[in-house]
Amino acid sequence: MNHQYHPLGFTGSRLAQGYWRLAEWGMSDQELVRFIEQGIEAGITTVDHADIYGDYLCETLFGKALALKPSLRDKLQVITKCGIMLPSKQRPEITSHRYDQSTGHIIQSVDHSLSNLQVESIEMLLLHRPSPLMDPDHIAEAFEHLYTVGKVKHFGVSNFSAQQFDLLQSRLDMPLLVNQVELSPLELKRFKDGTLEHAQQHAVTPMAWSPFAGGDLFKLEGINPTLHQAMSVVAEAHQASLDQIALAWLLRHPSGIVPVLGSGQIERVQSAQKALSITLTDDEWFAIWVASQGHPVP
Amino acid sequence: MNHQYHPLGFTGSRLAQGYWRLAEWGMSDQELVRFIEQGIEAGITTVDHADIYGDYLCETLFGKALALKPSLRDKLQVITKCGIMLPSKQRPEITSHRYDQSTGHIIQSVDHSLSNLQVESIEMLLLHRPSPLMDPDHIAEAFEHLYTVGKVKHFGVSNFSAQQFDLLQSRLDMPLLVNQVELSPLELKRFKDGTLEHAQQHAVTPMAWSPFAGGDLFKLEGINPTLHQAMSVVAEAHQASLDQIALAWLLRHPSGIVPVLGSGQIERVQSAQKALSITLTDDEWFAIWVASQGHPVP
Amino acid sequence: MNHQYHPLGFTGSRLAQGYWRLAEWGMSDQELVRFIEQGIEAGITTVDHADIYGDYLCETLFGKALALKPSLRDKLQVITKCGIMLPSKQRPEITSHRYDQSTGHIIQSVDHSLSNLQVESIEMLLLHRPSPLMDPDHIAEAFEHLYTVGKVKHFGVSNFSAQQFDLLQSRLDMPLLVNQVELSPLELKRFKDGTLEHAQQHAVTPMAWSPFAGGDLFKLEGINPTLHQAMSVVAEAHQASLDQIALAWLLRHPSGIVPVLGSGQIERVQSAQKALSITLTDDEWFAIWVASQGHPVP
Repeated sequence: MNHQYHPLGFTGSRLAQGYWRLAEWGMSDQELVRFIEQGIEAGITTVDHADIYGDYLCETLFGKALALKPSLRDKLQVITKCGIMLPSKQRPEITSHRYDQSTGHIIQSVDHSLSNLQVESIEMLLLHRPSPLMDPDHIAEAFEHLYTVGKVKHFGVSNFSAQQFDLLQSRLDMPLLVNQVELSPLELKRFKDGTLEHAQQHAVTPMAWSPFAGGDLFKLEGINPTLHQAMSVVAEAHQASLDQIALAWLLRHPSGIVPVLGSGQIERVQSAQKALSITLTDDEWFAIWVASQGHPVP
Repeated sequence: MNHQYHPLGFTGSRLAQGYWRLAEWGMSDQELVRFIEQGIEAGITTVDHADIYGDYLCETLFGKALALKPSLRDKLQVITKCGIMLPSKQRPEITSHRYDQSTGHIIQSVDHSLSNLQVESIEMLLLHRPSPLMDPDHIAEAFEHLYTVGKVKHFGVSNFSAQQFDLLQSRLDMPLLVNQVELSPLELKRFKDGTLEHAQQHAVTPMAWSPFAGGDLFKLEGINPTLHQAMSVVAEAHQASLDQIALAWLLRHPSGIVPVLGSGQIERVQSAQKALSITLTDDEWFAIWVASQGHPVP
Repeated sequence: MNHQYHPLGFTGSRLAQGYWRLAEWGMSDQELVRFIEQGIEAGITTVDHADIYGDYLCETLFGKALALKPSLRDKLQVITKCGIMLPSKQRPEITSHRYDQSTGHIIQSVDHSLSNLQVESIEMLLLHRPSPLMDPDHIAEAFEHLYTVGKVKHFGVSNFSAQQFDLLQSRLDMPLLVNQVELSPLELKRFKDGTLEHAQQHAVTPMAWSPFAGGDLFKLEGINPTLHQAMSVVAEAHQASLDQIALAWLLRHPSGIVPVLGSGQIERVQSAQKALSITLTDDEWFAIWVASQGHPVP
């Protein structure tokens, strides 16, 4: 009931735990083990990484926890990303903030990620951003290799438009299963530009990054009082918090959105998990939609 | 010559009569019978309804006329729509203005429409608006049912983008034959956002709501003097009225646009019908296009 | 190495020579022969025309040069365009600036072009602009005829969106091989609206008109100082000129962009050709991209 079964084979949890701020949490390896365990106990088994998170350090921190308690590995679906180059002390060879989606870089990036995460393979690799220099044939070559040698089981993208998705998919034998994009009651763009319709049509699971709009949801009263009011009414009706309502609102969408949580406080994670038992009515869903866009539906 | 034959089976008239303002016309049942008859005599046999028109009352008024003169039924192609929920004294159970495109609601809405219209079946059902909560599998289930039991012969949509259309079509066995959108010399959006190209490509008939821009065409001199001037020159050349030119302009488009008339004055309907015998030259068509957008073609 | 082989048969040079300003160059027929010869010597064998260039005069000027030295013909791939109507002393029958993409006009326009260019056939015909009145079946009829009688070997379009391309392609038996659009470091629109992704997906070659932004690139310091600075750094690193860097930047894109040159000075053409030996690094390519759009990549 907490799991989402993709028609093509991937099974992940309905909420994913994101680790892009892991380096800021200041956890010891043992504390992180406990955090991962408690997440699993709450039903959140999909973990979302990227090579660049925490200035290239988050994967390594996570890997240390896995090394400390190897039995955790098989309970998780590990996602990571590649394709962005960030200048960093960890990567002195990178001289500018750009993209690299060459065959060689993708393969090398996954090798780094596997080594840092201390795993043999990952469940899913996402291309982090569409690049204006994207050569789908080069990406296909990398994906085929990574699949064949068993390092990556499934593939997806992040922040792709429908057209960018179609281009890349047209060169691949395997299906792209995920498009991770920004989605929240404060960020409706992807609801309106065809991305979600395209995902629904092609059985692509949308993952939602920043489901709380990077924390703006918690300052909502000042940012969008109308939306704050609408969400507060719904929250009261369900005896729930604003963040639970934001998640329930995303979970209610028929495209099967998987929100990615970003908090390192286990109480927040456990609270988020309760959103799965909240089913918004159509009236409630549209009240939030209408308040966010500032005008009634036509 | 007045009829439009869809490659996939639907036959409708080149102009459709819309009944969204029927409740405001103040006609007796007998007067409405006469209005319908005169429309048929003028070659306008497609009638366009929606469950919500006239605060949910227009279908019922129309049904009373059909009951008064049952022989009219087989001379008409009846279109109605569903999927919008409007708070109304007629529907006290509806508590907010939103969409409902669940299997149950679509089927129930058609049952209401058939009962109100006093017909056994309709020629076409349109989904009135794309919903951000649209689940194409649920809609497909409803459409399959309505087709199988013989209540609806053909299906279409209204106000859909190309992407929304593709999503829904991908789940249906039957083709969507119509996309009813706003089109007029004052409203070029759908000419420019890919909707008409998509319709042409997939043999979808665009129906044009508000072909006179909700009456703005008759106040054109104040609203867009350049367009008024351009249309007046064309009108004079054809010894025609501005509304006839607006219709002739839409009818000239290769996608086979079917304008939906909204007037309850039979003289206006008969006048509109004369637009079918006006063929604009390319020079005239582009003069109106250029005047509307305010700059020459590139 | 200087040639681009299309998977479906067309072979053109990596840079094309455009002749839209030929009438302004003031060349004698003999001088034009020499200019064409020197272009061929520099590896630029694809020549780009349109019926309307130079107020309908450029094709005729070019044809006189070909007549003077017939052996040039077989060394060239001749492209021309049709579909725009421009009021002109040369064409008194045209009364307004509009499009004509009827079967009859396309065939007649090609006959004019063949006669003016003094050739039996051309390698490629492009539809010059998407028309809001485009009837793809009429265009298909014209293309089929022109192909069957041997007057046109390949077909393409110019300034088409992905949707417009799909519509026309859906009615054709032959593939559209080219979409000629505006592309330069100053004009990123087609990089962002899906046109280039669509071209890549369908093996359509993008040709770039105004690769120097209509000369704005040479006034770049005043127009976009940030971009000027970024391009100057790259130019210095390669000991190249700004226009060579602009071309190298376009040539680096994986969609196989073919820039169309517009200068009548053979030194400029020869200088442009040297861009083929400049390969920008990813750092350099993105430095120009970032400077042009005025913000880092996300």
